[in-house]
Amino acid sequence: MSEPTGVDGVSPDATRADESAVAEHSLSRRGFVRMLGWGGAGATVALGGRAAVDAIAEQSAPSPEELARAAAFAFETATIESGHQPGIATPQQAHASFIAFDLDASLTASRIKALLQILTDDSARLMTGTAPIADQEPEMAGDPAGLTVTMGYGPGLVDRVNPAAKPSWLKPLPGYKIDKLEDRWSGGDFLLQICADDPITLAHARRVLLKDARAFTTVRWVQDGFLGARGARVTGTTMRNLFGQLDGTVNPRTSEDLGQVVWIGSDSGESAWLHGGSSLVIRRISMDLERWDEVDRPGREASIGRRLDSGAPLTGTNEHDAPDFEARTPQGFHVIGPAAHIRRARGDGAERILRRPYNYDTALSGAAGSGAQVNDSGLIFAAYQANPEKQFAPMQARLAEADLLNTWTTPIGSAVFAIPGLGELGEIPGKALFE
Amino acid sequence: MSEPTGVDGVSPDATRADESAVAEHSLSRRGFVRMLGWGGAGATVALGGRAAVDAIAEQSAPSPEELARAAAFAFETATIESGHQPGIATPQQAHASFIAFDLDASLTASRIKALLQILTDDSARLMTGTAPIADQEPEMAGDPAGLTVTMGYGPGLVDRVNPAAKPSWLKPLPGYKIDKLEDRWSGGDFLLQICADDPITLAHARRVLLKDARAFTTVRWVQDGFLGARGARVTGTTMRNLFGQLDGTVNPRTSEDLGQVVWIGSDSGESAWLHGGSSLVIRRISMDLERWDEVDRPGREASIGRRLDSGAPLTGTNEHDAPDFEARTPQGFHVIGPAAHIRRARGDGAERILRRPYNYDTALSGAAGSGAQVNDSGLIFAAYQANPEKQFAPMQARLAEADLLNTWTTPIGSAVFAIPGLGELGEIPGKALFE
Ligand code: HEM
Ligand code: HEM
Repeated sequence: MSEPTGVDGVSPDATRADESAVAEHSLSRRGFVRMLGWGGAGATVALGGRAAVDAIAEQSAPSPEELARAAAFAFETATIESGHQPGIATPQQAHASFIAFDLDASLTASRIKALLQILTDDSARLMTGTAPIADQEPEMAGDPAGLTVTMGYGPGLVDRVNPAAKPSWLKPLPGYKIDKLEDRWSGGDFLLQICADDPITLAHARRVLLKDARAFTTVRWVQDGFLGARGARVTGTTMRNLFGQLDGTVNPRTSEDLGQVVWIGSDSGESAWLHGGSSLVIRRISMDLERWDEVDRPGREASIGRRLDSGAPLTGTNEHDAPDFEARTPQGFHVIGPAAHIRRARGDGAERILRRPYNYDTALSGAAGSGAQVNDSGLIFAAYQANPEKQFAPMQARLAEADLLNTWTTPIGSAVFAIPGLGELGEIPGKALFE
Repeated sequence: MSEPTGVDGVSPDATRADESAVAEHSLSRRGFVRMLGWGGAGATVALGGRAAVDAIAEQSAPSPEELARAAAFAFETATIESGHQPGIATPQQAHASFIAFDLDASLTASRIKALLQILTDDSARLMTGTAPIADQEPEMAGDPAGLTVTMGYGPGLVDRVNPAAKPSWLKPLPGYKIDKLEDRWSGGDFLLQICADDPITLAHARRVLLKDARAFTTVRWVQDGFLGARGARVTGTTMRNLFGQLDGTVNPRTSEDLGQVVWIGSDSGESAWLHGGSSLVIRRISMDLERWDEVDRPGREASIGRRLDSGAPLTGTNEHDAPDFEARTPQGFHVIGPAAHIRRARGDGAERILRRPYNYDTALSGAAGSGAQVNDSGLIFAAYQANPEKQFAPMQARLAEADLLNTWTTPIGSAVFAIPGLGELGEIPGKALFE
């Protein structure tokens, strides 16, 4: 075993270069130990268990600064799982930008393919921390910070390229009586979902992609969202939305679950370009914080069927306790009421979706005088599922029919995209669509 | 020494409650060790040096997850230094919201004081991770994530409360020929600068404060900005702005420097309410990334006088090398040219300011066809100095006169605020103004 080098012996740049040379797609324990300086900068030994402890014991205990340095995540790249696009099963990054484009009327199928190839090249480089060829700010590409770029094909794109291969569900959702949809938040021929743990990385990636798309497209809408900052909390903690609720407790997570809920299988009967892919429904849902705040705590907890503090179901004590939908109060009422959001959303459990939502929040100007709303806040409700018609739509219909949460929430935007499968990084997603 | 508890023995909530009970204003090494579970949850021993190492050695080596947990910063509170408002000398947090208000015409001095007292109470609680009294989402107050709320008083506020105590510099800056100022980004009677390392914390704090201000004020403008994410990079690393430049290299940092540049001293001749305070100039400066990208690297580096990769001066090799403004090329030209930004900004060194800027970035919709701008990006250029007339204005005049950077930058907003001193947390900043 080589002598461990002190933390000061590893410059952050050297470490980063080192990391990208290793070109692993996720942060390994070894990389981590090396970041801390517990392995030598050039050493290839993997330290673990008691060996690492002994190495530490030879130095002074790690200082807060050293630990923080070890946890630095700017150089991390998202895991790219073969067959699927990143940004779906990927743990949610802190920042997201959803951008819908309309394709120029003159764009032929082959030029659409050329556009997608350019954006694919850009994305593959950006996700691995390398500057795209035409990047004028290459220094800003070196910190991927978990960046993922996910591409969605809207009805308009598929109609132009290969209408025969269009899935029957690739169309706007049916209207719901709760909807107050606005054109400026709805539809689109093509989607980029760009997510990263660092807002500077995100701004740079977005700009590179927008520049390469602009000759062929018009931006239809942009929705920027955020979650809690990466590293602020213990990994895996459920985040709060702007109603203050823990949001994201029940979600498919195992690969078996994802296989059942999210991925379009090769035995699905769908066209080959969709295999390993999914569908994405984006609903922009405005949340009326003013009126929400007027309701007392029991009322707000009853609307969901979960507690505001712990996120536990009203029938349990811990966040991840299974809700007991049969439990009744001494008076004979259901503890989790008939119109509670989680009861209505779950239904009989036949439909499931992967929720990957982001908060949005805009402080409003000119909000004078008491009673005026001071924020325009809500959720960019992004849901992945193999089939939106069979999974998302019945669930949304059920919620539109009855859901206490509807008192304070209003869908103002809606869009559906096919999320093609991905052969390997650098290939156009769903390349079979173009063959 | 009590037996260390395993990491799993410390729930994040227990640790957080524990932390706030300790009520320290910054993250102590002991808190850090306890977060890791290397001290028992209830233990009061401080582990350090070899003792901590021994404690670690009794367990298995820390895993990446454990290290990340140790670095979690949601529960951190900013250091409040007596005499000064926080958010000035405080290391820059990742996210900022600057909100300028106009006071309602009917508002008397005593009601302005009442408003400020409410906002002061809110802020003191939020900054220490406690929910304000009227907070309907108290769970969201528990993660201060380095939150600071800094209050600025504009000319309109001071005129109404105590015109005799108005400093002569509290007025709009003189116009500069480079300015294209818009009303919607300029002026204001009162300012809140809210900064935090977590966007959810920021959204919550902003909402609480906006709700308590709305009965008496109109929001004049809101400017949201960001830097690199907290924890993404090694602490103390200079951030890049959206031109890709390392921005923030030369800035006063020592308390001696801050005393000379930023704080208004009790021997300054200014009114007592300003002692320990400062002034804040906010310039919204649009950056034309499109045209910036058309310039070659040498041209872009010459415009600043520093390299794009390392941030080193053109006469040096490392970021923090002192620029040699006398150095000449073999042809006899200055290496750092006469109109290079750093030469013009520094001048003869007589004027200095504390720069605390944030990036802003908005993707534009409807940017069809090649050549169209795809982002509205820039800097929320926030500068603190004891006297804006003597420090900021001459520097800005010099830059307006000649600065290569002007080719791609345009000031579109401007505002000046007095930043009162702070007795202690919970007191109205500059309370002598109301006496
Ligand atoms: C602004 C709108 C919404 C808010 C604030 C919201 C909030 C929540 C919260 C707090 C939970 C409980 C914790 C959890 O499991 O994450 C939940 C669960 C859930 N929500 Fe929503 N939700 C919204 C809209 C929707 C929509 C539009 C759908 C689908 C059409 C949906 C589907 C679900 C599902 C499937 C669950 C899990 C139910 C279960 O326990 O099986 N939600 N939501
Ligand atoms: C969008 C507009 C601006 C950009 C992109 C910008 C960028 C930069 C960069 C890259 C540096 C060199 C690195 C550093 O020391 O941070 C710098 C230095 C500096 N800038 Fe700016 N700047 C802008 C506007 C301004 C304005 C409006 C002022 C003051 C009126 C200013 C004052 C300074 C000062 C004092 C320095 C340090 C100079 C020294 O080395 O002594 N900058 N700026």
